[in-house]
Parts: sequence; structure tokens; C-alpha cells
Amino acid sequence: MHGNNIMSFHYNDDYLYCEKLKVKDIQETMPYSPFYLYSLAQLEANYAAYQKALEGINAIIGYAVKANNNLTLLKHLSALGSGAVLVSGNELQLSLAAGFDLKRTILNGNGKTLAELRLAVEHGVLINIDSEFDLQHIQQTAKDLNKPANVLIRINPDVDPEVHPYISTGMKNSKFGIRNERLNWFLDEIRKDDLLNLVGVHCHLGSTIKKVRIFRDATEIMLDFMRAIQAEGFSARYLNIGGGLGIDYERTGDDIPTPTDLINSIRGLLTDDITLIIEPGRSIIGNTAVFVNRVTGVKTNGNKHFIVTDGSMAELIRPSLYDAYQHIAFIEPVNGKVETFDIVGPVCESADFLGKERKLPAPPEGTGLVVCDAGAYCHAMSSNYNLKMRPPEYLVDGDRLTCIRRVETLDDYLRLFDV
Amino acid sequence: MHGNNIMSFHYNDDYLYCEKLKVKDIQETMPYSPFYLYSLAQLEANYAAYQKALEGINAIIGYAVKANNNLTLLKHLSALGSGAVLVSGNELQLSLAAGFDLKRTILNGNGKTLAELRLAVEHGVLINIDSEFDLQHIQQTAKDLNKPANVLIRINPDVDPEVHPYISTGMKNSKFGIRNERLNWFLDEIRKDDLLNLVGVHCHLGSTIKKVRIFRDATEIMLDFMRAIQAEGFSARYLNIGGGLGIDYERTGDDIPTPTDLINSIRGLLTDDITLIIEPGRSIIGNTAVFVNRVTGVKTNGNKHFIVTDGSMAELIRPSLYDAYQHIAFIEPVNGKVETFDIVGPVCESADFLGKERKLPAPPEGTGLVVCDAGAYCHAMSSNYNLKMRPPEYLVDGDRLTCIRRVETLDDYLRLFDV
Repeated sequence: MHGNNIMSFHYNDDYLYCEKLKVKDIQETMPYSPFYLYSLAQLEANYAAYQKALEGINAIIGYAVKANNNLTLLKHLSALGSGAVLVSGNELQLSLAAGFDLKRTILNGNGKTLAELRLAVEHGVLINIDSEFDLQHIQQTAKDLNKPANVLIRINPDVDPEVHPYISTGMKNSKFGIRNERLNWFLDEIRKDDLLNLVGVHCHLGSTIKKVRIFRDATEIMLDFMRAIQAEGFSARYLNIGGGLGIDYERTGDDIPTPTDLINSIRGLLTDDITLIIEPGRSIIGNTAVFVNRVTGVKTNGNKHFIVTDGSMAELIRPSLYDAYQHIAFIEPVNGKVETFDIVGPVCESADFLGKERKLPAPPEGTGLVVCDAGAYCHAMSSNYNLKMRPPEYLVDGDRLTCIRRVETLDDYLRLFDV
Repeated sequence: MHGNNIMSFHYNDDYLYCEKLKVKDIQETMPYSPFYLYSLAQLEANYAAYQKALEGINAIIGYAVKANNNLTLLKHLSALGSGAVLVSGNELQLSLAAGFDLKRTILNGNGKTLAELRLAVEHGVLINIDSEFDLQHIQQTAKDLNKPANVLIRINPDVDPEVHPYISTGMKNSKFGIRNERLNWFLDEIRKDDLLNLVGVHCHLGSTIKKVRIFRDATEIMLDFMRAIQAEGFSARYLNIGGGLGIDYERTGDDIPTPTDLINSIRGLLTDDITLIIEPGRSIIGNTAVFVNRVTGVKTNGNKHFIVTDGSMAELIRPSLYDAYQHIAFIEPVNGKVETFDIVGPVCESADFLGKERKLPAPPEGTGLVVCDAGAYCHAMSSNYNLKMRPPEYLVDGDRLTCIRRVETLDDYLRLFDV
């Protein structure tokens, strides 16, 4: 199902398996539906693919925690040697709990608060400077703590990632990064400040990128900036090219580049004095999970057919928010009449869909249905809309099933009203 | 600020007040930013406007809990005599806790689960039949409990509400409601079932509707259905025309209809044998709140100017999800150079904005900034994206400030990993 030659999610006799376990068997023993189901083997394979791609290169793999912050998954990644890319103070705290070496983490963001910067400086986290005010806040924090801060400058290479505008982040009109024409002002400010060490440059082009040429173009531009900064006397060594590699959501089997494709496209540009930082999120965690639903019923209105599931935009908002495609499949044999269905949840608005216009056989009630590639930006963006509880998460390792996040309960929710 | 001649949110000497309290004073004593701030007087005025509009009509005002489920606000509404419109079993449980008379509540939804229907039948909640399978589930539940179920049939009047497609819900290709041409099949099924009492018809056209003509057109169509059902021997008396009245998000001062405009447009159609049900959510709760932020900084990239706030799409996703406009204003005097700004949060993607292209004076750091009309579908849709914690809520009553939901903490979040 996921390619990659590993037995994470695959079919046998029309039943979906996660590693050695039949997903239908898992669903039938579950006290709660819907739920997320992860494959540890897929996670390990994805991380290994980056390690292999980076052989012979000084590099930090910084997993983008915002894609998925499940504590158990973070612990696995830190144990594998991953660094972490953080976008909030809470993510920093969670990364501490997960055992990450904070010297190999990076704090990103266009709106870091003073409290977040304080945590970052205290723990020696690399900090990307995003703007004039962000630099001033970092300076103030280092001064208040009388502690040095290791900083990179976030530059907008202005390379079009050719993705949805909501996840394009490196264009010159983006809210992220500095104005490149102001680079010298930043260098002067940093030079004047004894507590600031400029250690590199950073960019992030966007997300779901499918062409390595885009990374290569950006890397060339970033290297020019790096050489210019070195020529000004800074010993910057970190070249952080961000994340954003796409995954094969569409299952068209076409040319999604692998980590090796990505790294090989820029390998010739790198020199020994450079430590490369990459920030994969989706391409590490995206295809490690499915979102497992039960079919509540099937209905027809006007000329539209609908499969109604118990999962919804509350648990998985990407289709609705980004018009994102995620593959949808049954976990068991279904022999109904094939129609074109919208797959919709129970939430009371028309934005609530998981997929549109999918050719599928009409399923009986109770049929198991998965939204694939649900590891990244799915649970991480879930809400309690319609007072749905956030779903539990389970991890499969071979033939072993572990709960790695329990379901939220109404009591959890009500606790916030105890004031 | 909100019209309506009541002193909920208003300016005095360029400072925003919520009733008798200066919002800047509130902000300065707050341990957490951002936060939501509600006016009880505005809530009471909005409810009273519906009561006044409905004078002389048999009617149930069913507040749509999905718009905002804060427990304290629900208690105020139930104390005022409101009914409730529910879209999940959890909302039903919460409504019990808030003291609603469940005989005056309605359970809606295209994907109600058997567990939810069981709760509804047990508590005598009115249930809208949405589809063939939904009817079968209601029949099964009533039979299992050997308890009667009072049902309405949800019909698609196929009147275009002229709103964003995500919140248009009454067209013939919608996921909601029955196929009208199948009405007689539903009537036959209900007639055969001793435990089902058909008590009325329901429709819901959509949300943010600005023309009462749309409600009148739908009411005429629904009355035809009701008369046809009565002619078949059912003593249906509830005419449920749903909710969806828009509010003045744009502050253009133009012709948003009031509850009185809405009810007067249909008053002549109603007869004494009918009990009208209306399901307002946004028009009861939308303008009762502001979302209070602090400005983290101001920056410029390319030809774009940005005000960066501490609030984000994690706490308030409507602008990003629906391209919705919400008015944005400062809570204190600001004298910077007027520019055209995008107001963006700290979340690491370009979807994270609260408003676009707003002419405002450049604010100093720390300035208080509110997103207005933030009572409906704002906190209710909030997430922990970027591991931001869901913000606290405060209620003003005259000169009294009460916390009505505490801030979520990282410990609350970590508790879900104790498995």
C-alpha cells in the first residue's frame, strides 16, 4: 500500500493489515471509533531513508514536531537519533520530555514570544531569526539571562514551491523570514552583540513539494547568502534548507522524490565546512498512520451518493482546510454496487468531508474505512468541534498493539470549566 | 460597536470597553494571552430580541450548542428559557449539565450513532430523521428501549442560501436531509411503527444568511410539506425552520435582518396549530465576544506589511477555513503610520491569518488587538495546532469579571499520554 518495500500497511485477501495485525481485528476490539493507527516499522523506515540519503554529509535531521507531537512517537524518533524542529515553547517542553538533545533542535517561528525565547536560550536551542523585532527579542532575552544565543537567519529565497498557497512559506511576500535587502542591517546588529553567535542560515519553502529542482534552486541561493555572511567574518556553518518534501497522497505511483533524490540533488553543492540541517515532518510521519472509521450509513441526495463515517473534520481537517486529497479505502472486502461517493462525517456543516468523488463499492453499515497517510497534520490539527472528543492513537510493532494516546473524555473537557 | 443600543462593547477615549470594564485593564491583569472575552448583557439582549420577535407565536428557541458550548453560557441560556439544538451525544450530556429541559431540545445530524440516539430517546429529545438509515437506527433504538421516539423529518427545501458553500446545507445535493421524492416511503415506515411519533418537519438552509426572503421561501415550501403530512393523518405540529441568520461581521452598517425582520417575514404564514422551532446559534452568541490578543511585533516583507499577534488559526480558524471576515480593532489608542496590514499569528504556515489587508495604524509591541464577533464557531473549533493551548474565556457582567473556562495547560495535554 505504501510502496517502500516494507510491510507496514498492506492487503491480504482484501483485508488491510498494519504490519502483522489485521486492522479489522483491531477495530472489533476497540472501545472507541474512530481512531488513529500507526506502524512503527514505517516510521523507522522513513527515518532510515533520511539517514541513508545523508551518508557522508555532516547533517542534522530535525523532525518537525508540529506535524505530529505524539509523545511515544517522539520518543522513538529521539531514540533513533533525530533532532527536532520546534515552533512553540510547549513543543520545546514536550521535546525535553521525549528525550531529544536540545542542542540539536531549532526553534522556528514568525511570532515567538519572550517566554518561548527564554526557554530556547536557557536550553541552548538553535534559534532562527525571523524579523527585526524577533532579533530584538532574542537580544533582550540573551541579555536578561546573560547567556549566549546561537542564531540562524531565516531568508526568503523567493523560490515558488508550486503548492497550495496556505503551505507556501518562502516567497518574498510571506509572513516568514527577513527582507533579504536588509541582511546587512541584521549582520551589523548581530556583530555588535557579544551574546549572539550567528551560526547559519535557514529557509523553508513550503510543504508537499514534489520537485527536487525546487530544493536545489533554493540551496544555491542559500549558499550564496552563506558565503556572503562568511565573507563578513562570521563562522556560520549551518545550512538549514527546511523541510517540505511531499508524499504520495494521490497513490498515482508517479514521481514523488525520495530523501535520496532530494539530498543527491544538492550533494554536489555542499562542502565539508557545512553542516546541513533538514526539517522533514510529513515525509517522516505522514504515511505511518491511517485514520480508522466505521461506516454509519450510506445515503443519496439529488445526484450525490454519500458514505457517512463516524470520523469527521473535527479529527482530520486537511481535506476541508486545504482541499487536500487523502486516499480512502476499506479495511475489509466490500461487494456493493460501485458508485461515486463523497465520504462525509457527522459534523453539522457541508465543510465536513474526508474525500470527494471516490469510486467505491457501496459498503454495509459498520464497514471499516481508512483515510490513508494520516500521520501528519491530522491529529495535530484536531478539534472538539460538535463536541467530538479527540480520538485515541494506537501503535503497531510487528504483532504488538499499544495505545499511545487515550481517547479524550467529556470529563477531560469539563475539567476546563472547573474555575 | 455592536449597535443594538446596549452597552456591551463600546469605545470611550479610544479605549475599548466591555460593559463597564476597560478591556486594556483586563488584559493587563491576565496571566495568559490570548483570551476570549464575553459580554453577558449582549447575550441577554440577543436572546431577548428573539423572544420579542416571537411574541404571540407558539415557539421554541433552540440555541445551537455547536456554535459555542461554554458551560456557563449554556447555563445562562437555559435559565433564560432557551431550548437547545444538539448535534452529538456529548452536547446532549453537556446540555443536561447546563440545566436545559431536554423535552425542548432537538438532536440533528446526518451521522448520529446508535449510542447518541439511545441517549436522545431515553431523554425524550426531539429527533430529526436525516435519511433512510437514520430512520432505521431510530426505529431500532426505540425498539431496544421499548420507548417512544418523537421525530421530525429533515427536508431539503432546495432554497439557495447565497452563502459560502461550506455552510450551505439545504440544497438537494447536500449531505443533509431526506430525498423529498421519498417522503411517502418515510411516512409509510413511520406509520407502521408504534413507537415513532411524527411530530413535525425540519430544514436548515445554511449559515450567515442575510436575506429574510430566503427564510420565507423555505417556510412556504416547508408548510406545503407539513400540510401534506397532516393530510396523511399525522398530527405533526412542529415546523422547524432551522437557524442561520447572519450577523454584521463586516460592520458596513447595511441591512442584516433582525430576529423581528425574520419572524415578521413568516408570521402571516403561521397558524395556531403550529409550534415554530428556530435554531439560532451565531445570531445569539456571535457578537457577544471578542478574541483579545497582544501584538508580538510588526514586520514587512516584499510589499506586504504584517501585524504579528499571539493568537492564531489554532484558537480561531474561521478566516482560514471559510475565508471569513471578522472585524479587527485595537483596544487602546494607537498613533502609528497607517498601512495596509495582514494580521497573522505565530503558527508555522501561511494559512495562519486572522485578517487580511486591513488599514490600521502600525501598533507598538504589546498593543491589545481584538478580533470581533468571536462568540460563534471560534473557541468551538479551536485546536492544539503547533501545541498551542486552548485559551481561557472570561465573562463580563456590568463591572464584574468571571473566568468561565480556564486555560488548557501542557499537563492537561500530557494526561492523554498516560496510557
